[in-house]
Parts: sequence; C-alpha cells; structure tokens
Amino acid sequence: MHFASDNWAGAHGAISERLSAAAAHHGPAYGASDLDKAVTGRFRQIFKRDDVAVYFVGTGTAANALAMTTAARPGGVAFCHREAHMIADECGAPEYFSGGARLCPVDGPLGRMDPEELAKAIARYPADFVHAGQPMAISLTQATEIGTVYSLDDIRAISAVAGAHGLPLHMDGARFGNALAALDCTPADMTWKSGVDLLSFGGTKNGCWCAEALVVFEPDRWPQLPFIHKRAAQLFSKSRFVAAQFDAYLEADLWLGLARHANAMAGALADAFRKAPTTKLAWEPAANEVFAVIDAATAGKLTDAGATFHPWSWPHGAGHDTDDSETLYRFVASFATTEDDISRLKALI
Amino acid sequence: MHFASDNWAGAHGAISERLSAAAAHHGPAYGASDLDKAVTGRFRQIFKRDDVAVYFVGTGTAANALAMTTAARPGGVAFCHREAHMIADECGAPEYFSGGARLCPVDGPLGRMDPEELAKAIARYPADFVHAGQPMAISLTQATEIGTVYSLDDIRAISAVAGAHGLPLHMDGARFGNALAALDCTPADMTWKSGVDLLSFGGTKNGCWCAEALVVFEPDRWPQLPFIHKRAAQLFSKSRFVAAQFDAYLEADLWLGLARHANAMAGALADAFRKAPTTKLAWEPAANEVFAVIDAATAGKLTDAGATFHPWSWPHGAGHDTDDSETLYRFVASFATTEDDISRLKALI
Amino acid sequence: MHFASDNWAGAHGAISERLSAAAAHHGPAYGASDLDKAVTGRFRQIFKRDDVAVYFVGTGTAANALAMTTAARPGGVAFCHREAHMIADECGAPEYFSGGARLCPVDGPLGRMDPEELAKAIARYPADFVHAGQPMAISLTQATEIGTVYSLDDIRAISAVAGAHGLPLHMDGARFGNALAALDCTPADMTWKSGVDLLSFGGTKNGCWCAEALVVFEPDRWPQLPFIHKRAAQLFSKSRFVAAQFDAYLEADLWLGLARHANAMAGALADAFRKAPTTKLAWEPAANEVFAVIDAATAGKLTDAGATFHPWSWPHGAGHDTDDSETLYRFVASFATTEDDISRLKALI
Amino acid sequence: MHFASDNWAGAHGAISERLSAAAAHHGPAYGASDLDKAVTGRFRQIFKRDDVAVYFVGTGTAANALAMTTAARPGGVAFCHREAHMIADECGAPEYFSGGARLCPVDGPLGRMDPEELAKAIARYPADFVHAGQPMAISLTQATEIGTVYSLDDIRAISAVAGAHGLPLHMDGARFGNALAALDCTPADMTWKSGVDLLSFGGTKNGCWCAEALVVFEPDRWPQLPFIHKRAAQLFSKSRFVAAQFDAYLEADLWLGLARHANAMAGALADAFRKAPTTKLAWEPAANEVFAVIDAATAGKLTDAGATFHPWSWPHGAGHDTDDSETLYRFVASFATTEDDISRLKALI
Repeated sequence: MHFASDNWAGAHGAISERLSAAAAHHGPAYGASDLDKAVTGRFRQIFKRDDVAVYFVGTGTAANALAMTTAARPGGVAFCHREAHMIADECGAPEYFSGGARLCPVDGPLGRMDPEELAKAIARYPADFVHAGQPMAISLTQATEIGTVYSLDDIRAISAVAGAHGLPLHMDGARFGNALAALDCTPADMTWKSGVDLLSFGGTKNGCWCAEALVVFEPDRWPQLPFIHKRAAQLFSKSRFVAAQFDAYLEADLWLGLARHANAMAGALADAFRKAPTTKLAWEPAANEVFAVIDAATAGKLTDAGATFHPWSWPHGAGHDTDDSETLYRFVASFATTEDDISRLKALI
Repeated sequence: MHFASDNWAGAHGAISERLSAAAAHHGPAYGASDLDKAVTGRFRQIFKRDDVAVYFVGTGTAANALAMTTAARPGGVAFCHREAHMIADECGAPEYFSGGARLCPVDGPLGRMDPEELAKAIARYPADFVHAGQPMAISLTQATEIGTVYSLDDIRAISAVAGAHGLPLHMDGARFGNALAALDCTPADMTWKSGVDLLSFGGTKNGCWCAEALVVFEPDRWPQLPFIHKRAAQLFSKSRFVAAQFDAYLEADLWLGLARHANAMAGALADAFRKAPTTKLAWEPAANEVFAVIDAATAGKLTDAGATFHPWSWPHGAGHDTDDSETLYRFVASFATTEDDISRLKALI
Repeated sequence: MHFASDNWAGAHGAISERLSAAAAHHGPAYGASDLDKAVTGRFRQIFKRDDVAVYFVGTGTAANALAMTTAARPGGVAFCHREAHMIADECGAPEYFSGGARLCPVDGPLGRMDPEELAKAIARYPADFVHAGQPMAISLTQATEIGTVYSLDDIRAISAVAGAHGLPLHMDGARFGNALAALDCTPADMTWKSGVDLLSFGGTKNGCWCAEALVVFEPDRWPQLPFIHKRAAQLFSKSRFVAAQFDAYLEADLWLGLARHANAMAGALADAFRKAPTTKLAWEPAANEVFAVIDAATAGKLTDAGATFHPWSWPHGAGHDTDDSETLYRFVASFATTEDDISRLKALI
Repeated sequence: MHFASDNWAGAHGAISERLSAAAAHHGPAYGASDLDKAVTGRFRQIFKRDDVAVYFVGTGTAANALAMTTAARPGGVAFCHREAHMIADECGAPEYFSGGARLCPVDGPLGRMDPEELAKAIARYPADFVHAGQPMAISLTQATEIGTVYSLDDIRAISAVAGAHGLPLHMDGARFGNALAALDCTPADMTWKSGVDLLSFGGTKNGCWCAEALVVFEPDRWPQLPFIHKRAAQLFSKSRFVAAQFDAYLEADLWLGLARHANAMAGALADAFRKAPTTKLAWEPAANEVFAVIDAATAGKLTDAGATFHPWSWPHGAGHDTDDSETLYRFVASFATTEDDISRLKALI
C-alpha cells in the first residue's frame, strides 16, 4: 500500500525491457543516436506538429529550471501558483539557473492561478519601469500540486493574460499524462493549441525511472537552448537510454494507459475516503493525487498496516490555518497501484 | 569496431539486470531508500573510511560543476590542465554553476599539470590582493583526457602545491576505474591518502548507463553540499535506480574487472598501431584511450570497414601546430570492446 | 517645493566643500588613503566598537545586494517586509548578486514585519529539508519605506527570531539618520546592541551626493567581503572621494542635524495635512516621509504651483484595494526642505 | 612626484566646480534630469551619431562587466588580450556579472591582440558545437594596459575578425582620452567607424573623480540594457552628479586637453628614461603610461625623494621571465602631473 508518492514506484516492465535492450548495443553519444531521433519524432507525432524540439533532462526540476532560464530577462519575474513545485520544492533551482529570476506567487483556489490575480500580480511590474524589474514568463502546473487540473478554458484564460503581456507560457507537466487522462483531450489541445510555449514533460512519475524532457514549440524562438541545456550539465552522454524509456513509454499509448490507471485508482481511493465515516475528502481530485482529512486513530491504523502516505500542509486559501485540528494527508496513486491496495486501505478506514 | 568513445557503449549485463530488478519494487524517493544507503556503504568500504559522502548526479559535468561550486569563493580561480574536460568540453558549466569562477589553464606534458607551472599560475593570484581574485581549488583529471595517468607521486606533487596554498584538491575521475587499473593501487591511495578532497567518480563510461557521483571525503567540511546538490537539479526522485547501477558496478570488483579489460584492449590497440607500417602511436597510453597518427588512406579504409573513431586536436605542447600534416586520431576501448574488434582493426592497418 | 524624494535634493554645502578640497590632492587609490582610514575610524567611534568594517558602495541597492550576497547560502531565502525596497525597487539586484537567493515577503502593519508572521514564514523552510531551500537572513528597513520606524523593542523582537534560527540580521538603513533622529537613541543601540549584523548605511538621501556603505559588525565572520565587494565592481579607484563626503557628513554630528531637520519638516507637513480640510494623513509619520490622502483638485493645485510629489500604491494590508477612490500621495522632506516650502504648501491646501 | 597611477590624482578644478554647482539645486533622480539628458546629447555630438545610449556607472570594472553581460550567451566566451584589465584586475567581475562567461586570453605583442592569434582562439569554439561553448564577444583595451595603443588599422583588423564571426566588439576605454590624443583621430573613427559596438568610456583617470559610462552604439540591438544596468546596482539616484562631471569634462574639449597634457608628460618622462644612464625604456609609450627598467639604487633614490610608482610584472611574451634580473617599473602621468614633477625626477636619475 504505497501512497507516499508516484515517485516511490519502480518502472513499468515494458520500459525496463526497452532499457535493457538498448544496453546491449553501441550508439552515438550526446543525443545523436537513431533512437534519440526516433523519440523526437514520436513527440512530434504526439503533439501534431513538426517544429517541436525535445531536450532530455534528469529531473523535473531541471526541466523547469531550464524553461525559466530560457525565458529569463534581466530583473525578470515569473508568475506561478503559490503552491507550485518551482516555489515550494526545488530549493531555488529556477532562481539559481536563471541567474536570479524571481518567482512571484499567485493565488487561486484549488491549486490553480486565478487569471485576475495573475493580471494584478503582473501589473505590479509596469513596462519599462526598471526599478521593479520586468515580467518574463508565466508557469502553470498541470496537473496541479494538489491533484486538480486546469480545464482547457482555464489554460486559455491564463494564456490570454500571457498573450496580453507578451509573455511565454510554461507548463510544468510533471504529471502531464495524468492531467491529459483527466481532461481526455489531445496533447496539442492541452499545450500549444491553448497557448503553451514551453513544456516540462514528465515520464518518471508515470512509469519511467528517469525520463523527463523540456519540450519546446517553435524552437526557432529559443536558439540558445542547446547551449542552455549542455551548460546545465543535462546533456547525457548515453542520452539514448533516456530515449529508450520514452520510446517504450510513448509507444502505442502506453503512457496514457498508465495514467488512466493511476487516475482510476485515485478515483477509487477518493470514493473510499468520501464514504468512510472516519475520513473525508479535502476536495475532489481530478488526477492521481487524493487529499483527505483523517483522524489520528485511523491514520495510525493505516500506518501500522504498512501504508505509506504523507501529512500535508493545508494550501493557502483553503480556509485552514496551521494550528487547525484537522490533519490533511496526501495519497498518491501510480501506474503500480493495484486494486488490491485500494481494497486493503478501504478495509482499514 | 566502436572506438569513438567509451560512452558509445551500452551497459554491462549485470548492471542492466540490477536496474531491472529494482524496477519491480517501490522504495523511498530522493536517496532515502535502503539501496541508496547500501551504496554509500559500498563507497565507504572501497575508500576505507567512514566519513565519505556520496552525491549521485546525472553527468560527469554535473559532478565537476558541483565540486567547483562547493569550493567556490568570490573571485575564485580553479587551476586545471589546459586540456581538462572542464575547460574543453563542458560548455562553461563549472563557471556557470559556481557563479562565475574562472578556470585557469595550466600546462604540462602529456595531459598532466606540471607542479611548477601550477605553482607559477597560482602565484599570479597573491593572497588578499582583491584585484586579481583568489585561488579556490585545483583539479586534476585521472585518467587524463589523453589517456595518460598521474602516478601516485604525481598526484602527491600536485597535492603538495594545493596544501601549500590551502586549496582543496579535486579529481575528475570520469575514468577513475581505468586509472586505478592502470596504477594498480587502492582507491584510497589514489585519492584521500594522496590529498584528494573531492572526487568526480564516473561509472557511465565503464559499464553503467548513467551513474556518476560526487564523492566527498570529510563531508563536515562541506556542510552546504546537500543544498548545492538539490539546487543544481541533480537530486533524482528515483535515486535508487542510480544506486542500483552502482550496487552492481561495485559488487565483487566488477568495475575493476571492466576497467582492466578496457585497458587491456587499449593496450592491444596501441600495440597494433605501434607495429603497423601505416600508423604510429602519438604517445604511450596508460588507460583505455589510444592516440595514433594515421595516414588518410588507412583512416579511410578503417571508416569504410565500419570502425568509428574521431580525429583529435594535437594537445598544446605536443610539438604540432594546427596545420600539421600529421593527423591525430583517438581510439577508445571500453568494457564492451572485444578481442575480435582489435583483430579486425589490426587486419586493416 | 520639492517633495518628490529626498534623492532629488542636491548635496549639503559642507559635504560639497570637503569633496572639492579632496580634489586638489593626490592620494592612494582603492581605499588605501588616510582619508579612507580616518572615515572607518569615524564609523568605529559612532558605533562604539572597534571591530567594524566599512565598505563604500555607489548605491543603496549595492549595499543591500552585497549584504545578501554575504549571507547567501545555496537555496537561500531572505525574509523582509512585503514593501521592502529590496523587493519592490531593486530590479532583482539582491537575487542577481547573491546567485539566486529568494526574497520572501513578510507582512506586518505600517511597513514593519510582524515577528509572528516572520516566524511563520521561516517555518515553511524546515532545517535540513533540501526541497524547500533554507533560510539565510532577515532584513528590516529602518526607517521603513512608508516613513515609520521600528522601535528598539520592535528591532529586538525581530532579532530574537533571527537568533532563534541562527540567521544574520540585516538593516537597510537608506534613511538610517532619519530613523535614528526619530528614535533619539545611539547608533549602537539601533544596530548591534539590538542584534543587527550587517547594515546598509545611507548618506545620499541625507545630504551627500553619493555616499553609501555596507557596515559590518564582527567582520571576522565575513572574511570574503573584500572579494565580494571588489567582484561586484563597487571598489572605487578614487574611493577617497566617497570618504571625503562621509568625513564631512559624520563630523560634529552634521548628519544627525540634517536628519532632525528633515524629520521636523516632515512633522510640519504632517501637521498641515492633518489640519487641512481637503487632505488627511494616511498614517502618522515618524521620519521624513509623509503619506496623505488628497483629493484631485487639491493635488492639481499643488502641482500647478510647482510642487513635486508622487502618487503611491496603498501598502498591502492598509485596508485599501487598488480601485479605491482615495488617492494616496507621498511627500518626502530632506535636509534641503525649507520652512518656506512648508508654508507655501500649507497655503495651498 | 605621483606616478603610481592616474587614479591617485584628484579631480580637475572645472569638474569639481560643476559638481559643486549642481549640489545647490534639486533635480529629478535616476537619470531623468535635464543635466543627464544634456550629457547624453554631448556624447551624441562627440560620436557624431544620434543612436548612442549612455549608461553612467561607478567604476570601469562595472562598465566592462555590463558590456560582457550585454553580450553574454550561454556557455559564452569573450576574447581579450592576456594582460587585459578584465582578466588581470577585476576579481572576476565580468565572469560574475555575466553569469559565468569565460574570458579567453589572446596573445599579441605590446599589449595588443594579434588578429591571427585571435582567430585561432575563436576557432577552438566551432559554431554549434555545444561541448566547447560559444564565442560571444571580443574586447580590446584602448589605450592598452601597458601604455601602447591600437592604430585605426589595428582596430579594424580586430573588428574584421569580429565581423567574420558575428561577434560584437567591445572597447575598454578606461584611458579613452589618452588613446584618442595619441591617435589624433575623431572619437567616431576610433569606435563605431572602426567596428566598435560597446564602449567603456572612462573619465575618472583623466580628471573626474567618479565618471564612467557604458556607451552603446545602435542601442536598439541591446534593448535589455536599462534593466541590466539597474539590476547591477549601477543606476545612481543622484545620477546628475555624474552627469555634472561629464558635462564639464566634455565641454570645450577639456577632456582632450587633459589627455594631451598627460600624454605629453609621459613623453617627457620617457625621454628622461631613454637618456639617463641608469634607466632604459622597456618599450615606446604611446599614451600616458611609461614602463622602464631601473636599477635598484636609482629606484631607491626615487622612492626616498617621495616619488610614487609601482614595480610591474613583465608582460607575457616580452622576452623576460619572472626571475629576470631586470626590474620593470610603471610610471603613470595624469592631468595633474606637472613639468616640475618631471624635472625633479629627471634630476634624480
């Protein structure tokens, strides 16, 4: 019963096998292999356009930090939700890599930036007013850190603000597959057709062991990216081993199947929490993360039974302050979560 | 006949299998798993001391860049050989990560810094003279970029200079195993017993697909390293998959066996070049890289036969300038090089 | 009637004369002159301790940015009031100079951080939790950006929080003289005796034309500062011309006299706004800045009469939101403000 | 007899007076005053073109560092002479401000880069080869660090290399006036008409106390410079006091008169060293710095008589190594050097 995080899971068998198969052969280094190129082709197919560039990186933090570096301007400020991974969990990597850009927290309910709050935050940096600095990018997290998703309309509302200020729009898609499965739309719809310019595309949490990419639409706009990527120590010599993972991941919609499974398991979890007398859902989940209020006795029982999961801070604006007596917990389902895991948990609460 | 680079090879079967085995299980993320801890234990055993910290990273460039960041001072200057990987092949990553440190090239024959040249270079930065900046570290590459190695005495001569100036000594050990096999000494002898403080320990070129580490002796001296590591986007969520590779790599001296094999193959290659009428060795190799002068016809014949290898710039001070008529080529042997590869090449020259 | 800013004023005659006198002589460069040393002596006298180091810089932004650089840690976060100059008006200089440190806004009434809010903000960065980053410093602005001051008890409450977390305390004293005049205490009381470690000491706004300094107590704690200072391009070759200004400024308490005058003029201004039927004070001023609500007709009359002053955003938490019908204006008095200026303004409102 | 440096001199009377005059008045801050604008107009007149932008900074190091930051690219390398101030005397400021750019030393006789050596150095960074990094700028120092100057043909030879590689050309003109007086050409000829894009224009060493500027031709090419400037803490609030200095400096060719005087004094010094039996010129000076070989007895006699001057390292390639028995000394003349100083020195040697 592992619900601590989707990054506690191993790797899916098909991905693991493809990796092993690649291990048996020689191939050009630094992204020049046929497998590397084939995977770029897969991304182009998936996103339904030819001008897509793909930069493999080792962590989601790296993808985000490189996106911010790509968009950086002197005195630059990027806008993202107050609970965004970039703000809360990356040890200042985006600020560091970008040479000191600022991440400005924007509020909004349930992990999603409110477009009006976003516009107000940007308005504090008037054009050409050097004292304040200048806006440089907007970043949204899809799925969000608290298991919700932006609808296509939500994304377009954010991208309208970006467009009005001439700002590139970045999507942190560490759980891109889960969000896509939740929206049941195309990858193109959820990204460039809705105004996304730069995408952190995550495979690690959804069945790969280490496969993340910075995906860039209209790469001619960012000609420095090959150097930004290499300078950041993210150009793997045996790049084709990341490619091998993505190759299996993206083949025959494996990734979507894994994401749908994880979401379904999360849905079942949510159902359990909703119905149990000792627990309640903190809010409705949309992807593969479930947040629930659980009393101490029940939480202890779960832990004793070997379940892993984390207590969580109440998000800003959720109507709970820090000394609240209700304790929030996060449960994450993954490709490796089984129906048996859910049944056992259900039986305990 | 792949001699282009040791990073064109795949991964060793035992390492690949360990990775697949790890894929089947859940485990704590971010380096907290039992496997992560066990691997740190293996490093402690290998280096024969308890106060060793190990930070997994994705590339050798990352290991080097983090070492420089750890040693960084304002206006800091690190000294390394003119042909060092940090200077020639990392797109400025050490300078970038360290916030602008300078890499000062030091000359010396056959890829090794001359201790007197090193001392002279340091002398250009007198203590407390703020205008020049200040020395911050010395870095040596073992094995060197041109396939030679520092003897233990050589290392100690460099470390004496470091000690005289109170500077930490870093070793870029992207080919640590090959150097160790060449010297036939203990890892402790080649590192901390000879004055090395910070070590980039490479596994990728010697049979892993992605396993590099920054190894630190006396970690109490560098208390900020956990943050330096995370901020650099190098803390893998599924860290235990790097651990799995190292676990197999370090078990029962697999790594040394692989390195010895690669060196032996390089030795056989060197022998072939030494004896063939159409080729000559540029200098005697010590590890797994061989540099040879080959005439155009022979080089073409090799290429036609499917051999991969790269032309190379004559190193500074080798008595050849850029418009020299003699073309230098690099041949790299790896764990995956076979005796058959050597025989076929021999037959062609 | 110049009330736009204290940095619109010229320079005090005594300071200007001292500068001219220095112009007639040769002297060692880069801070080595007798005048440079004498001024450091003056600072030691004023702060009543011997271990004080003084680094001249060109702008208050430079002083603040160097203080943050001195305190920087990897993934570091500094805490300051939401309206702090570092956050609002320095184009990201502190983030840039420090290699990507984050400035975390802290709320509190009337421009002063609330110690409890501060403690809560710090608590979001638990010790040794690498994902979040780590606290590195606290910075308070004295006098604040909105013309109030921290009492000695206020400072000590902040410094208690700093002490509890082992964080250095920085004071942005761009208007140090005005704050000191307001509190009527000693410089030592307002700084190191109340826990301040690093001080941005401003002379420019109070009668110098360009004289700012980073003042450091217990300089042995920050041995890298000479290099940090030089690397930041802030070591003036003709440093003694900054020294000359400070020499006159600090002599015979000239600086305190100028600050008291500016504060008195601000007091008279406040009195005028308080009593006039068309205006009202936004809050009680303590130093040399006055914030008032003025109706459009009166504001226009003032502008027509040649008065300079700026509209201002309502500070966070002041109970006004952006589309408020009440317009806030800032009026700043300086050493050069005259009683005649006040009378003329009084007559107009 | 002050020959230690031109930055040991005070300030010229006319400049000092203009500064005092400005002190008596209020004026808009941050470069918005009429005086600031008038000075930009003066620069445009002097350089005979309208599209010139001028950014005042506090030190020559700041001007150079901002130029490098403006030209920076990821993994960027700037090429300058091995003895350039940026390499030898700025504590790594250009590397720091630019986010880790590298300064690549280029050799050439008498302080001037050899265009062929320059081209060879650039060739080590082939286009689109991410491993090496990429060229980003060329910088030449005019007058050079050792008192020579590039002729117009010399500058054009360098700028031809810059043009061939699409690189911006920066001129470090800390002693711009002295070089101009030596060449007796127009400022336009020595800069943009010969291919210079970015200019560090120094006034401090030639009679101002603190007046340096980054002068930019075709400012539309560098739209981020206002933010680069502010973020670097170089936007002075009382900017008009720098403007006041430049206003007097540039009026009626005062600056050229001062430079000609300094050069003439250096010429007289050189003549003295050339003729005296105990001294010899190291090489022919062109601007205001003179380098001479002096025996220990004579050097002691000069010091005893109160002369200030510095021993100097033999420049690379001058045919002297460090343990040479001939000691090199630098003597710098300035606007404040008098004929009496020269006569007294002459009498002593």
